[in-house]
Amino acid sequence: MIDGHTLLVPHIGYPTGSFKAPMIYNPWFESRGVNAVVVPLAVTAEDFVATMKALSLVRNMRGALITMPHKIAVVDLLAERSKAVEIAGSCNAVLRRDDGSYAGDMFDGTGFTRGLANKGFRVAGSRGLVVGSGGVGSAIAAALAADGATAIAVNDTNPATAEGLGARLRRHYPAIDVSVRSNDPAGFDLVVNATPLGMKPGDPLPFDAGRLSASTFVGEVVMKQEITPLLAAARARGCRIQVGTDMLFEMIPAYLEYFGFGRATADDLRAVAQVSY
Amino acid sequence: MIDGHTLLVPHIGYPTGSFKAPMIYNPWFESRGVNAVVVPLAVTAEDFVATMKALSLVRNMRGALITMPHKIAVVDLLAERSKAVEIAGSCNAVLRRDDGSYAGDMFDGTGFTRGLANKGFRVAGSRGLVVGSGGVGSAIAAALAADGATAIAVNDTNPATAEGLGARLRRHYPAIDVSVRSNDPAGFDLVVNATPLGMKPGDPLPFDAGRLSASTFVGEVVMKQEITPLLAAARARGCRIQVGTDMLFEMIPAYLEYFGFGRATADDLRAVAQVSY
Repeated sequence: MIDGHTLLVPHIGYPTGSFKAPMIYNPWFESRGVNAVVVPLAVTAEDFVATMKALSLVRNMRGALITMPHKIAVVDLLAERSKAVEIAGSCNAVLRRDDGSYAGDMFDGTGFTRGLANKGFRVAGSRGLVVGSGGVGSAIAAALAADGATAIAVNDTNPATAEGLGARLRRHYPAIDVSVRSNDPAGFDLVVNATPLGMKPGDPLPFDAGRLSASTFVGEVVMKQEITPLLAAARARGCRIQVGTDMLFEMIPAYLEYFGFGRATADDLRAVAQVSY
Repeated sequence: MIDGHTLLVPHIGYPTGSFKAPMIYNPWFESRGVNAVVVPLAVTAEDFVATMKALSLVRNMRGALITMPHKIAVVDLLAERSKAVEIAGSCNAVLRRDDGSYAGDMFDGTGFTRGLANKGFRVAGSRGLVVGSGGVGSAIAAALAADGATAIAVNDTNPATAEGLGARLRRHYPAIDVSVRSNDPAGFDLVVNATPLGMKPGDPLPFDAGRLSASTFVGEVVMKQEITPLLAAARARGCRIQVGTDMLFEMIPAYLEYFGFGRATADDLRAVAQVSY
């Protein structure tokens, strides 16, 4: 029940029609007696900076969820950036600090690695290949680095994009063996599809699944369907897999902790959510 | 259930802890399937103008409820002001128009006269005395004028305040017999206490209740207790009365209509509200 003490977490993007976060966070807040609410805030790109500056003045704003088209623009507004933000070059959660400045973090990659941990895959000491070096690929690579991967290979159809990610990873994690490679998945403990391939029928696979060994764990970011052609091929090779929506579900507990609202599991959230996911 | 299509109505003030509006509006929205939500927005006086300018950019903001300490400051931000706003010099509801500008209105007085109408008192053709010419007294005088009172007398312990209200009433309603008078209640159809007298134990009455005739209707804005000493004295004289909270309850349907959310009665609202009032 919203009252005069309720903390606000605006979910800022444009358009907002397809937002799911209010139907996931708010029922959980209610179930736990957390006096906070996620509300959609429809703000266009041209109005984003002015809106964020004004929101920084709102005393009962705890923070905000930032989504398209603002995930990159918000980085310039942050007084404090996590390593994940620095590496990904984008941010999807900000905290309003007492002085009105913003700290920002990025939990796409954390959602991915939390999902791996829940399935018993140990990132620490592993060798991973991330295919696709855009926003989500960068975030996943950053999370693998944060969790102690020994070696991280990155790849992109645009070589400069992959080189850029490689350079950012090396700067923040000099001890990790970072390489820019082909998309050959042979020889890795973990291979991740962080490209959009698999969203459209007839898309080629993002890499040659015939080169996967059964001991390799295959993760996917595409959530258009539960079992993408890539995941089907990986399963046929005997690989363990992680579906795209797992990243989504696992990242929400990370946001809740970040905002100081307590601990939840993805299953806790699914049990009360007013939307299927 | 808040989703990506929810319209926002921030309730803007500082501090917000005692806000009741969310617990009145939101259960009613839910009971009627109106996809809107009232959320508290804690904004200090120094941050108010910047916040309002930024909120004007938020596409799913329907309007806002404006309360202390911003009810006067907001008037300067309005592209369109109702007569009630012009006369009261304050505003407690703004609509965001499609071009991002604000229209403003003020429903304190409307709440008061709706309460009178529900009790069978006919303002049209009546002669009223409003004791106290501050924000709420001005709003009530404006509502009496809008509803067709024949004569309106105003009074204040600060004569300049009463003269100012009298001048604004005459400018907007030249056909009404407006006078600045003493607080003698004799000879009026309606007498209103719009001063704070009655909030503290031992306060003097705002006017001499011994001069009331039984045919005079006595209205009160003080809501510290249901039957204030003034109302007790008026009842003892045989007068019909209106208690302070009636103004509050009756104004909410006026706001709901203003925001385009449909029609409600005060009783509809009381039936679902999650706060007693």
